[in-house]
Amino acid sequence: MKIGNKGAILVLSGPSGAGKSTIINAASDEIGEYYFSISTTTRAPRVGEVHGKDYFFVTKEAFEEDIKAGNFLEYAQVHGNYYGTSLKPVREALEEGKLVIFDIDVQGHRLVRAKMNDITTSAFITPPTLKELEKRLRERCTDTDEVITRRIENAKEEIRAVGEYDFTIINDTIAEAAKEFVIVAKAARLKQSREDEEAFIRHWLG
Amino acid sequence: MKIGNKGAILVLSGPSGAGKSTIINAASDEIGEYYFSISTTTRAPRVGEVHGKDYFFVTKEAFEEDIKAGNFLEYAQVHGNYYGTSLKPVREALEEGKLVIFDIDVQGHRLVRAKMNDITTSAFITPPTLKELEKRLRERCTDTDEVITRRIENAKEEIRAVGEYDFTIINDTIAEAAKEFVIVAKAARLKQSREDEEAFIRHWLG
Repeated sequence: MKIGNKGAILVLSGPSGAGKSTIINAASDEIGEYYFSISTTTRAPRVGEVHGKDYFFVTKEAFEEDIKAGNFLEYAQVHGNYYGTSLKPVREALEEGKLVIFDIDVQGHRLVRAKMNDITTSAFITPPTLKELEKRLRERCTDTDEVITRRIENAKEEIRAVGEYDFTIINDTIAEAAKEFVIVAKAARLKQSREDEEAFIRHWLG
Repeated sequence: MKIGNKGAILVLSGPSGAGKSTIINAASDEIGEYYFSISTTTRAPRVGEVHGKDYFFVTKEAFEEDIKAGNFLEYAQVHGNYYGTSLKPVREALEEGKLVIFDIDVQGHRLVRAKMNDITTSAFITPPTLKELEKRLRERCTDTDEVITRRIENAKEEIRAVGEYDFTIINDTIAEAAKEFVIVAKAARLKQSREDEEAFIRHWLG
């Protein structure tokens, strides 16, 4: 039995093309109920993107008001657009005891750690090598050469932060990566908040 | 695939009577090969205790020489007797890629963290309450009243360190506790050393 009934946070980072969504989908039957955090952004929706599924699309003014009101768990500005994670749905999911999964970058991970370190577990998911990442990005044919080059440059930077994560999942085969992800997600659920620990000690002593 | 082939450390602490051995035995089929670290002590063997199984029994002189030679991962003096963990068998098991399990106290956990933090995972195992601990200690009829009183007093101190551990396993039922222990042990195996991470980054960048 773990201490307390609150949920916990699992942060996933890693280059676009690492296979994060594929791994989560392959593991989803085994990891139990979770809430996949949806980011809020001021960038325009791309063809096929759905508000409330891919992102919450909002105006720059609305985003900046939310910043001032302290409504973001983490946010950043990239290429002139804001991206962030609203606190409210995360808090609600945690209250309901759910595992909250984030797909955010290295900088976002640092901000979540700074605010909710005691209930946070993190994993960096990556293809075995930079070469393999490039191969996969070219094979999926969804990005222009320019976008692929930018993703590669980002990945070269982000890999250096691998030591900041609790776990690294090297996505060599989906089956093996999904098996490891199940262990990481189950371990993440067992994390308890400092607050719950203090209440437990009082209860334990009687 | 995890980074590197080295083993990892799992520290278990918790009051005598928490059911640590029972939980490990119940989980052992599922957690794979492990090395259970055997402590070295200068106290006299009790009836039935076997050298090399329960403890390595050595003289005070031999123990103190090993201290001077830096051969202990952690050691302490309790009631005039030395207790410690020799580095050599731990290093060998780690080189062989094994999970090394320690059953040590709160102070021992701090020393292992100080020396091998990057590959260490820890769990505090405890009965649901102090009352339940006392009941279990009385029921197993292996200790005198005096020993039980000392164990209870120790437990009251040790429970305060619960927040220093990665996980708490509340041993309410053996079946549930063993299930959680399997998750913790599997997660512990996925921990990678800082050294392996640095080698991985170099390899990854190509």
